[in-house]
Amino acid sequence: MPKVVDHEERRADLGAAVWRLASREGLEAVTMRAVATEAGWSTGALHHYFSDKEELLLFAFRTVADRMGRRLAAATEEAAGPLELLARLLEEGLPLDAERRAEVRVWFAFLGLALTRPVLARTQRLTYRAWRSRIADTLRDAQALGEVAADADPEGEAAALIALVDGLAVQATFEPRAVSAERQLELLHERLDALASRR
Amino acid sequence: MPKVVDHEERRADLGAAVWRLASREGLEAVTMRAVATEAGWSTGALHHYFSDKEELLLFAFRTVADRMGRRLAAATEEAAGPLELLARLLEEGLPLDAERRAEVRVWFAFLGLALTRPVLARTQRLTYRAWRSRIADTLRDAQALGEVAADADPEGEAAALIALVDGLAVQATFEPRAVSAERQLELLHERLDALASRR
Repeated sequence: MPKVVDHEERRADLGAAVWRLASREGLEAVTMRAVATEAGWSTGALHHYFSDKEELLLFAFRTVADRMGRRLAAATEEAAGPLELLARLLEEGLPLDAERRAEVRVWFAFLGLALTRPVLARTQRLTYRAWRSRIADTLRDAQALGEVAADADPEGEAAALIALVDGLAVQATFEPRAVSAERQLELLHERLDALASRR
Repeated sequence: MPKVVDHEERRADLGAAVWRLASREGLEAVTMRAVATEAGWSTGALHHYFSDKEELLLFAFRTVADRMGRRLAAATEEAAGPLELLARLLEEGLPLDAERRAEVRVWFAFLGLALTRPVLARTQRLTYRAWRSRIADTLRDAQALGEVAADADPEGEAAALIALVDGLAVQATFEPRAVSAERQLELLHERLDALASRR
Protein backbone atom coordinates (compact mmCIF):
# COMPACT_ATOMS: atom_id res chain seq x y z
CA MET A 1 0.00 0.00 0.00
CA PRO A 2 2.40 2.71 -1.20
CA LYS A 3 -0.22 5.42 -0.76
CA VAL A 4 -0.42 4.88 3.01
CA VAL A 5 3.36 5.04 3.40
CA ASP A 6 3.44 8.23 1.40
CA HIS A 7 0.71 9.73 3.57
CA GLU A 8 2.61 8.85 6.76
CA GLU A 9 5.81 10.28 5.35
CA ARG A 10 4.12 13.51 4.40
CA ARG A 11 2.61 13.75 7.87
CA ALA A 12 6.09 13.28 9.37
CA ASP A 13 7.46 16.05 7.12
CA LEU A 14 4.66 18.32 8.25
CA GLY A 15 5.30 17.41 11.87
CA ALA A 16 8.93 18.43 11.48
CA ALA A 17 7.86 21.75 9.91
CA VAL A 18 5.37 22.48 12.72
CA TRP A 19 8.01 21.65 15.30
CA ARG A 20 10.71 23.85 13.67
CA LEU A 21 8.31 26.76 13.51
CA ALA A 22 6.96 26.33 17.06
CA SER A 23 10.36 25.97 18.71
CA ARG A 24 11.87 28.83 16.68
CA GLU A 25 9.07 31.40 16.79
CA GLY A 26 6.61 30.19 19.41
CA LEU A 27 3.21 28.56 19.16
CA GLU A 28 1.59 31.88 18.21
CA ALA A 29 3.47 31.70 14.90
CA VAL A 30 1.91 28.32 14.05
CA THR A 31 -0.73 29.28 11.48
CA MET A 32 -1.93 27.33 8.42
CA ARG A 33 -0.12 29.77 6.13
CA ALA A 34 3.16 29.75 8.08
CA VAL A 35 3.27 25.95 8.31
CA ALA A 36 2.58 25.62 4.58
CA THR A 37 5.44 28.03 3.83
CA GLU A 38 7.80 26.29 6.26
CA ALA A 39 7.05 22.89 4.69
CA GLY A 40 7.18 24.24 1.12
CA TRP A 41 3.54 23.29 0.49
CA SER A 42 0.49 25.18 -0.68
CA THR A 43 -2.11 26.05 1.97
CA GLY A 44 -4.57 23.97 -0.06
CA ALA A 45 -2.40 20.84 0.23
CA LEU A 46 -2.01 21.46 3.97
CA HIS A 47 -5.81 21.44 4.30
CA HIS A 48 -5.80 17.73 3.42
CA TYR A 49 -4.00 17.11 6.71
CA PHE A 50 -5.23 19.84 9.07
CA SER A 51 -8.51 21.69 8.95
CA ASP A 52 -7.56 24.64 11.17
CA LYS A 53 -5.06 26.27 13.51
CA GLU A 54 -6.41 24.37 16.52
CA GLU A 55 -5.55 21.03 14.89
CA LEU A 56 -2.05 22.34 14.21
CA LEU A 57 -1.68 23.34 17.88
CA LEU A 58 -2.84 19.93 19.03
CA PHE A 59 -0.38 18.35 16.63
CA ALA A 60 2.50 20.47 17.99
CA PHE A 61 1.55 19.54 21.56
CA ARG A 62 1.33 15.85 20.70
CA THR A 63 4.75 16.10 19.07
CA VAL A 64 6.16 17.25 22.43
CA ALA A 65 4.19 14.54 24.27
CA ASP A 66 5.48 11.86 21.82
CA ARG A 67 9.08 13.01 22.18
CA MET A 68 8.75 12.88 25.97
CA GLY A 69 6.94 9.54 25.71
CA ARG A 70 9.83 7.98 23.76
CA ARG A 71 12.34 9.18 26.36
CA LEU A 72 10.14 7.92 29.20
CA ALA A 73 9.96 4.50 27.52
CA ALA A 74 13.78 4.45 27.27
CA ALA A 75 14.03 5.47 30.95
CA THR A 76 11.69 2.63 31.91
CA GLU A 77 13.95 0.16 30.06
CA GLU A 78 17.15 1.50 31.53
CA ALA A 79 16.33 2.33 35.17
CA ALA A 80 17.75 -0.09 37.74
CA GLY A 81 14.79 0.37 40.13
CA PRO A 82 11.68 2.47 40.87
CA LEU A 83 13.55 5.31 42.62
CA GLU A 84 15.90 5.77 39.68
CA LEU A 85 12.94 5.56 37.29
CA LEU A 86 11.07 8.17 39.34
CA ALA A 87 14.01 10.56 39.00
CA ARG A 88 14.25 9.94 35.24
CA LEU A 89 10.49 10.40 34.70
CA LEU A 90 10.58 13.77 36.44
CA GLU A 91 13.86 14.98 34.91
CA GLU A 92 12.32 14.57 31.45
CA GLY A 93 9.97 17.46 32.27
CA LEU A 94 12.76 19.87 33.25
CA PRO A 95 14.34 22.20 30.64
CA LEU A 96 17.84 20.78 31.21
CA ASP A 97 19.12 20.98 27.61
CA ALA A 98 18.29 22.72 24.32
CA GLU A 99 15.84 19.97 23.28
CA ARG A 100 13.83 20.07 26.51
CA ARG A 101 14.00 23.89 26.64
CA ALA A 102 12.29 24.02 23.25
CA GLU A 103 9.69 21.47 24.40
CA VAL A 104 8.93 23.36 27.61
CA ARG A 105 8.36 26.57 25.65
CA VAL A 106 5.83 24.85 23.39
CA TRP A 107 4.26 23.21 26.45
CA PHE A 108 3.69 26.51 28.29
CA ALA A 109 2.48 28.30 25.17
CA PHE A 110 -0.05 25.49 24.73
CA LEU A 111 -1.10 25.84 28.36
CA GLY A 112 -1.79 29.55 27.85
CA LEU A 113 -3.89 28.86 24.74
CA ALA A 114 -5.73 25.93 26.39
CA LEU A 115 -7.20 28.32 28.99
CA THR A 116 -9.80 29.46 26.50
CA ARG A 117 -9.98 26.42 24.16
CA PRO A 118 -11.88 23.42 25.57
CA VAL A 119 -10.41 20.90 23.08
CA LEU A 120 -6.85 21.88 23.99
CA ALA A 121 -7.74 21.94 27.70
CA ARG A 122 -9.00 18.36 27.47
CA THR A 123 -5.74 17.18 25.88
CA GLN A 124 -3.78 19.03 28.53
CA ARG A 125 -5.87 17.41 31.27
CA LEU A 126 -5.44 13.87 29.90
CA THR A 127 -1.69 14.34 29.49
CA TYR A 128 -1.26 15.48 33.10
CA ARG A 129 -3.50 12.70 34.37
CA ALA A 130 -1.39 10.09 32.54
CA TRP A 131 1.87 11.61 33.81
CA ARG A 132 0.55 11.76 37.39
CA SER A 133 -0.65 8.15 37.40
CA ARG A 134 2.68 7.02 35.91
CA ILE A 135 4.53 8.75 38.78
CA ALA A 136 2.07 7.41 41.39
CA ASP A 137 2.49 3.83 40.06
CA THR A 138 6.27 4.14 40.28
CA LEU A 139 5.94 5.42 43.86
CA ARG A 140 3.78 2.38 44.68
CA ASP A 141 6.48 0.10 43.21
CA ALA A 142 9.04 1.85 45.42
CA GLN A 143 6.76 1.38 48.44
CA ALA A 144 6.39 -2.33 47.66
CA LEU A 145 10.19 -2.62 47.77
CA GLY A 146 10.34 -0.62 51.04
CA GLU A 147 12.22 2.23 49.30
CA VAL A 148 9.56 4.82 50.15
CA ALA A 149 7.55 5.06 53.40
CA ALA A 150 4.37 2.95 53.33
CA ASP A 151 2.31 5.86 54.70
CA ALA A 152 3.22 8.27 51.86
CA ASP A 153 0.21 9.04 49.64
CA PRO A 154 1.30 8.20 46.05
CA GLU A 155 -1.35 10.40 44.39
CA GLY A 156 -0.56 13.43 46.54
CA GLU A 157 3.20 12.98 46.24
CA ALA A 158 2.85 12.57 42.45
CA ALA A 159 0.88 15.84 42.19
CA ALA A 160 3.47 17.65 44.33
CA LEU A 161 6.46 16.25 42.38
CA ILE A 162 4.95 17.17 39.02
CA ALA A 163 4.08 20.60 40.44
CA LEU A 164 7.69 21.11 41.49
CA VAL A 165 8.95 20.14 38.02
CA ASP A 166 6.44 22.39 36.23
CA GLY A 167 7.14 25.33 38.53
CA LEU A 168 10.91 24.96 38.21
CA ALA A 169 10.44 24.83 34.43
CA VAL A 170 8.57 28.17 34.57
CA GLN A 171 11.32 29.88 36.56
CA ALA A 172 14.11 28.28 34.50
CA THR A 173 12.49 29.37 31.23
CA PHE A 174 12.40 33.03 32.21
CA GLU A 175 15.50 33.06 34.46
CA PRO A 176 17.95 30.50 33.09
CA ARG A 177 20.78 31.92 35.17
CA ALA A 178 18.99 32.09 38.56
CA VAL A 179 17.48 28.63 38.05
CA SER A 180 20.21 26.74 36.17
CA ALA A 181 20.03 23.09 35.11
CA GLU A 182 22.24 22.25 38.11
CA ARG A 183 19.92 24.08 40.50
CA GLN A 184 16.83 22.37 39.05
CA LEU A 185 18.38 18.92 39.51
CA GLU A 186 19.55 19.79 43.02
CA LEU A 187 16.05 20.90 44.11
CA LEU A 188 14.33 17.89 42.53
CA HIS A 189 16.76 15.39 44.04
CA GLU A 190 16.56 17.02 47.46
CA ARG A 191 12.83 16.33 47.37
CA LEU A 192 13.30 12.75 46.12
CA ASP A 193 15.94 12.08 48.79
CA ALA A 194 13.56 13.36 51.47
CA LEU A 195 10.90 10.94 50.19
CA ALA A 196 13.36 8.04 50.22
CA SER A 197 14.77 8.81 53.68
CA ARG A 198 11.34 9.07 55.34
CA ARG A 199 10.73 5.29 55.05
CA MET B 1 -5.74 69.69 40.41
CA PRO B 2 -9.06 68.25 39.22
CA LYS B 3 -7.59 67.17 35.88
CA VAL B 4 -5.17 64.72 37.55
CA VAL B 5 -7.94 63.19 39.68
CA ASP B 6 -10.06 62.74 36.58
CA HIS B 7 -7.20 61.08 34.73
CA GLU B 8 -6.60 58.62 37.61
CA GLU B 9 -10.31 57.83 37.81
CA ARG B 10 -10.50 57.10 34.11
CA ARG B 11 -7.45 54.86 34.35
CA ALA B 12 -9.13 52.95 37.19
CA ASP B 13 -12.30 52.56 35.07
CA LEU B 14 -10.19 51.21 32.23
CA GLY B 15 -8.38 48.88 34.60
CA ALA B 16 -11.71 47.45 35.73
CA ALA B 17 -12.78 46.95 32.09
CA VAL B 18 -9.50 45.20 31.17
CA TRP B 19 -9.83 42.96 34.23
CA ARG B 20 -13.48 42.05 33.52
CA LEU B 21 -12.61 41.16 29.93
CA ALA B 22 -9.45 39.20 30.79
CA SER B 23 -11.03 37.16 33.58
CA ARG B 24 -14.19 36.50 31.55
CA GLU B 25 -12.76 35.73 28.08
CA GLY B 26 -9.03 35.26 28.58
CA LEU B 27 -6.06 37.47 27.79
CA GLU B 28 -6.37 36.70 24.08
CA ALA B 29 -9.62 38.69 24.05
CA VAL B 30 -7.88 41.81 25.38
CA THR B 31 -7.55 43.95 22.26
CA MET B 32 -7.77 47.74 21.92
CA ARG B 33 -11.18 47.44 20.28
CA ALA B 34 -12.62 44.99 22.86
CA VAL B 35 -11.42 47.05 25.82
CA ALA B 36 -12.86 50.24 24.31
CA THR B 37 -16.22 48.47 23.85
CA GLU B 38 -16.14 46.99 27.36
CA ALA B 39 -15.40 50.40 28.90
CA GLY B 40 -17.93 52.21 26.67
CA TRP B 41 -15.21 54.35 25.11
CA SER B 42 -14.10 55.05 21.57
CA THR B 43 -10.88 53.36 20.40
CA GLY B 44 -9.50 56.87 19.83
CA ALA B 45 -10.07 57.82 23.48
CA LEU B 46 -8.43 54.59 24.61
CA HIS B 47 -5.31 55.51 22.61
CA HIS B 48 -4.69 58.38 25.05
CA TYR B 49 -4.03 55.74 27.72
CA PHE B 50 -2.60 52.74 25.87
CA SER B 51 -0.70 52.74 22.60
CA ASP B 52 -1.10 49.04 21.76
CA LYS B 53 -2.17 45.57 22.81
CA GLU B 54 1.14 44.88 24.54
CA GLU B 55 0.56 47.82 26.91
CA LEU B 56 -2.91 46.46 27.67
CA LEU B 57 -1.44 43.02 28.45
CA LEU B 58 1.15 44.57 30.76
CA PHE B 59 -1.62 46.53 32.44
CA ALA B 60 -3.71 43.37 32.98
CA PHE B 61 -0.68 41.57 34.44
CA ARG B 62 0.12 44.50 36.74
CA THR B 63 -3.50 44.49 37.89
CA VAL B 64 -3.03 40.88 39.05
CA ALA B 65 0.34 41.74 40.63
CA ASP B 66 -1.21 44.76 42.43
CA ARG B 67 -4.12 42.70 43.75
CA MET B 68 -1.70 40.08 45.05
CA GLY B 69 0.57 42.82 46.42
CA ARG B 70 -2.27 44.31 48.48
CA ARG B 71 -3.10 40.89 49.97
CA LEU B 72 0.58 40.21 50.67
CA ALA B 73 0.81 43.55 52.51
CA ALA B 74 -2.25 42.60 54.60
CA ALA B 75 -0.69 39.19 55.34
CA THR B 76 2.52 40.89 56.48
CA GLU B 77 0.50 43.06 58.91
CA GLU B 78 -1.56 40.19 60.27
CA ALA B 79 0.86 37.24 60.49
CA ALA B 80 1.96 36.31 64.03
CA GLY B 81 5.42 35.18 62.91
CA PRO B 82 7.59 34.32 59.88
CA LEU B 83 6.26 30.77 59.44
CA GLU B 84 2.66 31.97 59.35
CA LEU B 85 3.68 34.76 56.97
CA LEU B 86 5.46 32.26 54.73
CA ALA B 87 2.29 30.19 54.47
CA ARG B 88 0.19 33.28 53.70
CA LEU B 89 2.64 34.55 51.05
CA LEU B 90 2.50 31.22 49.24
CA GLU B 91 -1.25 30.62 49.61
CA GLU B 92 -1.88 33.90 47.79
CA GLY B 93 -0.50 32.30 44.63
CA LEU B 94 -2.84 29.29 44.76
CA PRO B 95 -6.23 29.33 42.97
CA LEU B 96 -8.16 28.69 46.21
CA ASP B 97 -11.22 30.86 45.45
CA ALA B 98 -12.96 32.50 42.49
CA GLU B 99 -10.84 35.66 42.78
CA ARG B 100 -7.51 33.81 42.77
CA ARG B 101 -8.73 31.40 40.07
CA ALA B 102 -9.35 34.36 37.76
CA GLU B 103 -5.94 35.81 38.63
CA VAL B 104 -4.12 32.53 37.99
CA ARG B 105 -5.75 32.24 34.56
CA VAL B 106 -4.57 35.73 33.57
CA TRP B 107 -1.15 34.91 35.03
CA PHE B 108 -0.68 31.76 32.92
CA ALA B 109 -2.05 33.36 29.79
CA PHE B 110 0.50 36.15 30.29
CA LEU B 111 3.26 33.56 30.77
CA GLY B 112 2.35 31.95 27.43
CA LEU B 113 2.45 35.30 25.63
CA ALA B 114 5.67 36.38 27.38
CA LEU B 115 7.54 33.48 25.73
CA THR B 116 7.76 35.45 22.50
CA ARG B 117 7.53 39.05 23.80
CA PRO B 118 10.72 40.37 25.48
CA VAL B 119 8.95 43.27 27.26
CA LEU B 120 6.42 40.91 28.88
CA ALA B 121 9.18 38.39 29.69
CA ARG B 122 11.10 41.11 31.55
CA THR B 123 8.06 41.99 33.69
CA GLN B 124 7.48 38.30 34.38
CA ARG B 125 11.13 37.90 35.41
CA LEU B 126 11.11 40.90 37.77
CA THR B 127 7.86 39.76 39.40
CA TYR B 128 9.20 36.26 40.11
CA ARG B 129 12.48 37.67 41.36
CA ALA B 130 10.63 39.93 43.81
CA TRP B 131 8.38 37.09 44.99
CA ARG B 132 11.34 34.76 45.44
CA SER B 133 13.38 37.26 47.43
CA ARG B 134 10.33 38.01 49.60
CA ILE B 135 10.01 34.29 50.44
CA ALA B 136 13.77 33.91 50.98
CA ASP B 137 13.79 36.91 53.39
CA THR B 138 10.91 35.41 55.36
CA LEU B 139 12.79 32.10 55.55
CA ARG B 140 15.84 33.97 56.88
CA ASP B 141 13.63 35.60 59.57
CA ALA B 142 12.36 32.11 60.50
CA GLN B 143 15.95 30.85 60.67
CA ALA B 144 16.94 33.76 62.95
CA LEU B 145 14.17 32.68 65.35
CA GLY B 146 15.27 29.04 65.13
CA GLU B 147 11.98 28.06 63.43
CA VAL B 148 13.71 26.68 60.32
CA ALA B 149 17.01 24.74 60.20
CA ALA B 150 20.06 27.02 59.99
CA ASP B 151 21.53 24.90 57.17
CA ALA B 152 18.50 25.29 54.85
CA ASP B 153 19.34 27.39 51.76
CA PRO B 154 16.76 30.23 51.69
CA GLU B 155 17.18 30.95 47.96
CA GLY B 156 16.85 27.31 46.94
CA GLU B 157 13.91 26.65 49.28
CA ALA B 158 12.19 29.80 47.99
CA ALA B 159 12.56 28.65 44.36
CA ALA B 160 11.21 25.19 45.26
CA LEU B 161 8.24 26.56 47.25
CA ILE B 162 7.24 28.98 44.49
CA ALA B 163 7.66 26.15 41.97
CA LEU B 164 5.32 23.95 44.02
CA VAL B 165 2.70 26.71 44.18
CA ASP B 166 2.95 27.47 40.44
CA GLY B 167 2.79 23.81 39.49
CA LEU B 168 -0.18 23.11 41.76
CA ALA B 169 -1.90 26.13 40.23
CA VAL B 170 -1.40 24.61 36.74
CA GLN B 171 -2.93 21.27 37.73
CA ALA B 172 -5.74 22.89 39.74
CA THR B 173 -6.65 25.17 36.83
CA PHE B 174 -7.15 22.27 34.42
CA GLU B 175 -8.31 19.64 36.94
CA PRO B 176 -10.15 21.46 39.74
CA ARG B 177 -11.59 18.19 41.04
CA ALA B 178 -8.38 16.12 41.13
CA VAL B 179 -6.45 19.03 42.67
CA SER B 180 -9.01 20.73 44.92
CA ALA B 181 -8.36 23.75 47.15
CA GLU B 182 -8.13 21.37 50.11
CA ARG B 183 -5.56 19.19 48.33
CA GLN B 184 -3.47 22.22 47.32
CA LEU B 185 -3.35 23.48 50.92
CA GLU B 186 -2.54 20.00 52.23
CA LEU B 187 0.42 19.60 49.83
CA LEU B 188 1.77 23.09 50.51
CA HIS B 189 1.51 22.72 54.29
CA GLU B 190 3.09 19.26 54.22
CA ARG B 191 6.11 20.88 52.58
CA LEU B 192 6.14 23.80 55.07
CA ASP B 193 5.81 21.42 58.03
CA ALA B 194 8.76 19.39 56.71
CA LEU B 195 10.82 22.59 56.53
CA ALA B 196 9.85 23.56 60.11
CA SER B 197 10.45 20.09 61.56
CA ARG B 198 13.95 19.78 60.07
CA ARG B 199 15.36 22.44 62.42
